[in-house]
Amino acid sequence: MKIVILGGGGVIGQKTAHALAASGTLRGQQIERLVLADIAPPAVIDAPFAVGTRTGDIANRADVDAMIDADVDVVFHLAAVVSGQAEADLDIGLAANLHGTLNVLERCRALGTCPIVVYTSSMAAYGGEVPDPITDFSVHNPQTSYGAQKVIGELLLTDYSRRGLIDGRGFRLPTISVRPGAANLAASSFMSSIIREPLNGAEAICPVDPAFEHLYLSPRACVANLIRGAEIETEALGMNRCMLMPGRTWTIAQLIEAMTRIAGPEPARLIRWEPQPEVQAIVMGWRARTEPVKALLLGLRADESFDDNVRYYLEDDRPRA
Amino acid sequence: MKIVILGGGGVIGQKTAHALAASGTLRGQQIERLVLADIAPPAVIDAPFAVGTRTGDIANRADVDAMIDADVDVVFHLAAVVSGQAEADLDIGLAANLHGTLNVLERCRALGTCPIVVYTSSMAAYGGEVPDPITDFSVHNPQTSYGAQKVIGELLLTDYSRRGLIDGRGFRLPTISVRPGAANLAASSFMSSIIREPLNGAEAICPVDPAFEHLYLSPRACVANLIRGAEIETEALGMNRCMLMPGRTWTIAQLIEAMTRIAGPEPARLIRWEPQPEVQAIVMGWRARTEPVKALLLGLRADESFDDNVRYYLEDDRPRA
Repeated sequence: MKIVILGGGGVIGQKTAHALAASGTLRGQQIERLVLADIAPPAVIDAPFAVGTRTGDIANRADVDAMIDADVDVVFHLAAVVSGQAEADLDIGLAANLHGTLNVLERCRALGTCPIVVYTSSMAAYGGEVPDPITDFSVHNPQTSYGAQKVIGELLLTDYSRRGLIDGRGFRLPTISVRPGAANLAASSFMSSIIREPLNGAEAICPVDPAFEHLYLSPRACVANLIRGAEIETEALGMNRCMLMPGRTWTIAQLIEAMTRIAGPEPARLIRWEPQPEVQAIVMGWRARTEPVKALLLGLRADESFDDNVRYYLEDDRPRA
Repeated sequence: MKIVILGGGGVIGQKTAHALAASGTLRGQQIERLVLADIAPPAVIDAPFAVGTRTGDIANRADVDAMIDADVDVVFHLAAVVSGQAEADLDIGLAANLHGTLNVLERCRALGTCPIVVYTSSMAAYGGEVPDPITDFSVHNPQTSYGAQKVIGELLLTDYSRRGLIDGRGFRLPTISVRPGAANLAASSFMSSIIREPLNGAEAICPVDPAFEHLYLSPRACVANLIRGAEIETEALGMNRCMLMPGRTWTIAQLIEAMTRIAGPEPARLIRWEPQPEVQAIVMGWRARTEPVKALLLGLRADESFDDNVRYYLEDDRPRA
């Protein structure tokens, strides 16, 4: 079993690599080699199998050819320009998210081996004039360039799979929280930082009000779902290869209550409430409620409570003093 | 008012040109110039304004720049590689339908004038595991590469419109019948030829049984809808720029009854019933029933009866002896 993770230097890429290292197997087979590929050199991980790193830009077909070895069995395609950056610069978003995904699919097609491709789409696929809740049969109606580009990737993934060129599986991720590391350009960045920074003893800004509802998934559950996504039997997927990834809906107030239950009252006092209309304009167009029936039937899972998400952060990610 | 029709040599492109020539205006303004552009030289039409023709391939950005003049007000983007060809050759379909549409949008973006772009998508956007009937909120679930590429064009059209780069309006066309000209290799070809050929005194083959239901629109109503599409006030469109174009659902038996009411009993005797499982396998996967609420509210229309479609063919298209 030979695996490449595109976006292997990112939070989910690194956590997926660690999970694969911990199990040593995928789809019931020993892992022989894992390649972590990203635009900046990914951190190497310890594993009971060979781990390599590659650096390249998925917008460049030659780079993609060099990142995806000819004998690869499973490609985790997690590489993307995030929502804030794709909105700020249409060309950069199209290059990475549209042409980059086409490059990945064309490389896999050229191999002639129908490799498994696990693709991360986003809840940004939805928004605007669409009835609630979102189901597997709700129209994609993205309200951002990032969302549009992600749905385009879904359509290509399903079409290349239908043609037998790849064995694709795409998942619309809820917002990942508590996401470790530094804040990034995603409009959703605050949905982790208002928990993460206070747990680390630092201040954080909340740009929306406490009643703001959103759909969340912990990094740990997301990684388990992506690995489950790679393991689903092809026959069970049906023609439509893309689906909602389960998440759970909570308000900002509920997130903070969970943090307080786990870590006491001090962290919540480090949150500063500063409404930011430009952030609100993006995140209030997103959908908070889903019925991810297909993914649940295929064995993917949401978190039980946001208390778990807070605990996972403390166990997996909080920097040690 | 300066207009270009990409796909201006095709059936709908030519009929749109004739309709514009007959009215002389669009959006309440005198038409000054119409350019018909296509991959082969389009037929010139008589009009009370200047008519030019251009030849080029929309897959080639330089050709697109030469087809769309810098002062254009309205672009009818009807150019596409059709379903059969896009299915037979993925590369040709992607080149014309994905990269070609990107080229059109990028050309319009580069103009900096936010031109109106009227885009023809297709009922091929739907299929597979989706509840009946199709509504404006049904998930796009194309079962062909053509359908996938058309939906990708929709997503780009809406995103470029949201960003203020173009003023896009996209419509998912029902099957056009009675389509003039020769039969082609499209699986839907018989849905016109079983009416057209008998009205012309020739035999035709019907590969499905009389109870087969499908969604139809006459060329005349389609052209009226595309022109209405260009005329809708921007504010009335909302964020989602693409919608179902109205059609009406009839059985093959109803089509033939309409022909008999208009043209007497002789034509129906020229239909040979020869079941073709390979055609049935394709067309029975298509959707026959829609609720095109948004388009109806915006003033687009279906035909009143298939009798009208038969009459339109006789009036507009039947070759004169």
